[in-house]
Amino acid sequence: MRKRIRDLNIRIGTMQPGKRNAITDVPGVKVGHVTLNEDLENEECIRTGVTAILPHDGNLFRHKVPAASFVLNGFGKTSGLVQVEELGEMETPIMLTNTFNVGTVMKGTLEHMLEQNPEIGDTTGSLNVVVGECNDMYLNSARLLPILPEHARQAIDSASTEVEEGAVGAGTGMLCYQYKGGVGTSSRIINDQYTVGVLVVSNFGQRKEFELARYKDPLMNDKDIPDGSIMMIVGTDAPLSDRQLKRLSKRAPIGLARTGSNVHHGSGDIVIAFSNGYTIPHFAESDFIEQKKLIRDDSKIMRELFQGVAEATEEAILNSLTMAETTTGRKGRVVEGLPYDLLNK
Amino acid sequence: MRKRIRDLNIRIGTMQPGKRNAITDVPGVKVGHVTLNEDLENEECIRTGVTAILPHDGNLFRHKVPAASFVLNGFGKTSGLVQVEELGEMETPIMLTNTFNVGTVMKGTLEHMLEQNPEIGDTTGSLNVVVGECNDMYLNSARLLPILPEHARQAIDSASTEVEEGAVGAGTGMLCYQYKGGVGTSSRIINDQYTVGVLVVSNFGQRKEFELARYKDPLMNDKDIPDGSIMMIVGTDAPLSDRQLKRLSKRAPIGLARTGSNVHHGSGDIVIAFSNGYTIPHFAESDFIEQKKLIRDDSKIMRELFQGVAEATEEAILNSLTMAETTTGRKGRVVEGLPYDLLNK
Amino acid sequence: MRKRIRDLNIRIGTMQPGKRNAITDVPGVKVGHVTLNEDLENEECIRTGVTAILPHDGNLFRHKVPAASFVLNGFGKTSGLVQVEELGEMETPIMLTNTFNVGTVMKGTLEHMLEQNPEIGDTTGSLNVVVGECNDMYLNSARLLPILPEHARQAIDSASTEVEEGAVGAGTGMLCYQYKGGVGTSSRIINDQYTVGVLVVSNFGQRKEFELARYKDPLMNDKDIPDGSIMMIVGTDAPLSDRQLKRLSKRAPIGLARTGSNVHHGSGDIVIAFSNGYTIPHFAESDFIEQKKLIRDDSKIMRELFQGVAEATEEAILNSLTMAETTTGRKGRVVEGLPYDLLNK
Amino acid sequence: MRKRIRDLNIRIGTMQPGKRNAITDVPGVKVGHVTLNEDLENEECIRTGVTAILPHDGNLFRHKVPAASFVLNGFGKTSGLVQVEELGEMETPIMLTNTFNVGTVMKGTLEHMLEQNPEIGDTTGSLNVVVGECNDMYLNSARLLPILPEHARQAIDSASTEVEEGAVGAGTGMLCYQYKGGVGTSSRIINDQYTVGVLVVSNFGQRKEFELARYKDPLMNDKDIPDGSIMMIVGTDAPLSDRQLKRLSKRAPIGLARTGSNVHHGSGDIVIAFSNGYTIPHFAESDFIEQKKLIRDDSKIMRELFQGVAEATEEAILNSLTMAETTTGRKGRVVEGLPYDLLNK
Repeated sequence: MRKRIRDLNIRIGTMQPGKRNAITDVPGVKVGHVTLNEDLENEECIRTGVTAILPHDGNLFRHKVPAASFVLNGFGKTSGLVQVEELGEMETPIMLTNTFNVGTVMKGTLEHMLEQNPEIGDTTGSLNVVVGECNDMYLNSARLLPILPEHARQAIDSASTEVEEGAVGAGTGMLCYQYKGGVGTSSRIINDQYTVGVLVVSNFGQRKEFELARYKDPLMNDKDIPDGSIMMIVGTDAPLSDRQLKRLSKRAPIGLARTGSNVHHGSGDIVIAFSNGYTIPHFAESDFIEQKKLIRDDSKIMRELFQGVAEATEEAILNSLTMAETTTGRKGRVVEGLPYDLLNK
Repeated sequence: MRKRIRDLNIRIGTMQPGKRNAITDVPGVKVGHVTLNEDLENEECIRTGVTAILPHDGNLFRHKVPAASFVLNGFGKTSGLVQVEELGEMETPIMLTNTFNVGTVMKGTLEHMLEQNPEIGDTTGSLNVVVGECNDMYLNSARLLPILPEHARQAIDSASTEVEEGAVGAGTGMLCYQYKGGVGTSSRIINDQYTVGVLVVSNFGQRKEFELARYKDPLMNDKDIPDGSIMMIVGTDAPLSDRQLKRLSKRAPIGLARTGSNVHHGSGDIVIAFSNGYTIPHFAESDFIEQKKLIRDDSKIMRELFQGVAEATEEAILNSLTMAETTTGRKGRVVEGLPYDLLNK
Repeated sequence: MRKRIRDLNIRIGTMQPGKRNAITDVPGVKVGHVTLNEDLENEECIRTGVTAILPHDGNLFRHKVPAASFVLNGFGKTSGLVQVEELGEMETPIMLTNTFNVGTVMKGTLEHMLEQNPEIGDTTGSLNVVVGECNDMYLNSARLLPILPEHARQAIDSASTEVEEGAVGAGTGMLCYQYKGGVGTSSRIINDQYTVGVLVVSNFGQRKEFELARYKDPLMNDKDIPDGSIMMIVGTDAPLSDRQLKRLSKRAPIGLARTGSNVHHGSGDIVIAFSNGYTIPHFAESDFIEQKKLIRDDSKIMRELFQGVAEATEEAILNSLTMAETTTGRKGRVVEGLPYDLLNK
Repeated sequence: MRKRIRDLNIRIGTMQPGKRNAITDVPGVKVGHVTLNEDLENEECIRTGVTAILPHDGNLFRHKVPAASFVLNGFGKTSGLVQVEELGEMETPIMLTNTFNVGTVMKGTLEHMLEQNPEIGDTTGSLNVVVGECNDMYLNSARLLPILPEHARQAIDSASTEVEEGAVGAGTGMLCYQYKGGVGTSSRIINDQYTVGVLVVSNFGQRKEFELARYKDPLMNDKDIPDGSIMMIVGTDAPLSDRQLKRLSKRAPIGLARTGSNVHHGSGDIVIAFSNGYTIPHFAESDFIEQKKLIRDDSKIMRELFQGVAEATEEAILNSLTMAETTTGRKGRVVEGLPYDLLNK
């Protein structure tokens, strides 16, 4: 039975987590996974999946959320960021999967949204699907492209406020510090008023970099392990502009750095941040947007948000490690779940 | 029989075009189209396709080309730019299609590259597929998602140095200044030594903006026409760094502006530039890259490249207009090919 | 007696200018110049100055304006853009001068603001001074560094709604298309409701590039003329976010391109855009900013703003040419004011 | 007598520092300081200065170095980055000072370079001066603007390979984690072949954030302390392109994060990276640049460079703390030098 880092009596930072200590502590946010595990002939293995993060409960196309991104290291294939940068908003769930299936998941998500919104592509514009990825080819027979468009829909349909962590969804085949990694999440309460949450898919790092290790675990043969990546998704209900969300997204790497990573060349280290503190209607009679209020950049709330993102990112990464079970993959490769006695408490 | 703008005795700029006056004047560059035209029930019509631009003749994964991009207006879904920005290189053909098929074309291109390179996803990393798009939903029943992964391969396989223009490939269903637009290309000779070529898929603008018009043509009902987009692909054999290619890519909008566009909100105006003047090997024994030579930023060659990009972009857009035939699409909509007597010579 | 382009019966674009056809048509905006003209020994000449653009009438530090910038070609020394990008706001006048005096004008503007705001640097933070520049060394003995800090204050103090154009202020020694250039301004009315205005300091281009020329004027020896630059300042009273102001700033180069420029290597082509449709208070009790309303990105108003920026930039550049008088500078160099019979009406 | 962190038996990271454990371990790099300490009437104090980093021994204008920057948080006034971004090169020393003196130091550096290069501003273009800053107003009477242009020259002229640390040069009045901060430096050997060095001016953070603290020191009244900033200068002799230097510059914040900072709103956290592994000549007969060789992005050398930057940045920050002496400043304020028994070894 795997545990979260906090249940191993290691506390990250000084701020208070939300009830679930998950991105779904942000009211309205839901997360769903589809996990594909299958053993095939010739030591081929399917160890992959899809994870969907829904920024709010309603129709995301009709009620867009302000959003921004930050690319720390861009060896990654995340789609949809060009339009997020231009318009400062997102209009689909954030979908996460493995590298080779970005196109397929984009298609499945599009189909889902087209069904939900018969006017898209008929009487009103287009759709910008955001899909992030890490490369699970060490354990997963990625060349077999097992993911289908309907897996994207299933991940969306299965979304709830309970977030499974570890070797699940997009995290099924991922590695972190050469242990088994995958999905992790955490949250922080902001000024007794708002919540900021982070969900990661971790797939990066070498054992010798891992900050919390008491000793150096014997290495796996790291020649075969690609540099990996990390997707960091930040959500909050604090009302922030897209510019402020970009500022938030730049604090996620602080948490990443504290776990030990030096952000390798071949890594896609990408942050996507959204707020559901207000939404932007797709259809409008007026030429104007009525903005209620935004957080001031120099306020105590913003300072807590910055710290909260750093802390929750660090804890989400550690949760992805402590929650992931030892996993066997293609070519008979075994990746160990992080042994708890390694941890420097 | 449609004609190119130069055959209508209108000369753009002062520099000399290459032999074909096409991006394929850059040695090694090839272009292929797949065009889907089908009339269905209930006034549904397939008017779409795929266009592939091959930066060189060889294996693009093993011999990558330096590349860069510039986003003038980011209401677009182009994939692959994050990694192009980080690494300054491209490792697939540049694929162009309609908005809803970015995912499908990404998948088809990936399959093609996986086949060609059995080591990708097995013993060596991942693949960054670059797919650009415009929205052809005015004429094309885009919601039907008629494009299949194999169309991407077919576009690649059919690539040659002869470039069909107008309502073909990715340009099949596109509009430009509310006339029929689509694919256009042009080139310029640089310092008697190099070539710079541009290929566009034009899908933007209102009749009243069109600069070359002698009179204002009665408008179509522009309420139904989405803002559109333009993809501008710049290729050259001049040896340039990725930073210099970004500088080149910023000159394409100069040509665009001269045709009359004010670059509307809902437009994805995206430039991708590459050089095949040298390549970067994927596999290497050495820790070093041996660079032969690069153009100096302050040289006459760079000045001509800047001007050449502006001129060739303008002419490519005009070719996309003068070469495209009147096209009937979904809902019985007819978009007229640009009438030549409109042109202010 | 020099004339503006509109008084020469050439109309740029289709939209209506404001009353003064100047950036000062935006309510609250003022412009001031200090011009330094002096003939020294040994063919040295002072032909330089400072121009100040005040975004509104009040205390700019205490009531900041939303702002953004866009760098088309970054061979320039504009200061202050890092903080504008981070915070999306500006807290000083926009100061324009020649290349070598950015530091001096920064200091003079700082001194002015420190005087006006005794709390800066004592009980409240710092100050971000925005200074743009072009290089007037062809006519001006720039190495003599004749500008003093007090010239910055004088430019600010002299600001009014009447904008002098041509060889004045920061434009005193500038060249445009190898004719005498300098300061130019223009404006457009937006939706009968708002105004957008542009002020440029033009200092770029070669005669052979000039779009409006009926014939090719014999060239000056262009070997000695550096590539130059253009500063484009965009102001509006339409309430826009910093992200939207960045979108606006990307439309200024459209107007620039239409005058003929290909944006040379050695040119600093930089746009700074602000709105005074609302302000952001420096001091606040609350953790929140109350936003009244913003323009929707997809509204008719935004479309007109985009077009208005393109038109006003083009007209401002042409005004800088038609208003500038023939000027003699260092080394006995004479730069001709644009001859009106050159214009292709 | 203050000590460096390593002399306190705390080792940062696993890599080997250079001989001096300073940025000047990079062959050719020199650092000079001018320190202004003066006690005036009415509790006013001058506690400020200038620091100059010379990327190589020769004429920097004639032999430019490849360079790049990264802005983690842009509440800062660093000048010169626009042109560094466009051209990927630097042509002056990197000058560091306090916020209000960026203009003055820019002028002084310009004067120095004009003297050294009589052709600048006469027969050849302009000069891009790079000046970074932090805000020392807590201890220093910054409003008095005590720094003069000649201090810039003196800092340059005094440059040597011995780097003084702590409350010196630009670091004279700076605070770090609410202890006395200032200048710190460190280096790492790369692949037994190259060196990467970092110099910081630290001026950020709250005591409660400091990672190495064994206990929470009673706080100073942090209401009066502005958020501060950190300048991080990265130098190496490894031959890297400007794009690769941008990648390097993104690893400095990893070291920063590990010291505990959450990167506050009011902080200018700015990295500037250069290589002197090759230079780019200002004057050239040829249209081409002959590049010898560059490091491959996927090489072991690049991986070590990334780690080296993270380690050296962390150690440089800690050196700035452990080397800075308790300092009294304006209003009778005393900022304590970091007490060594606070350190969690």
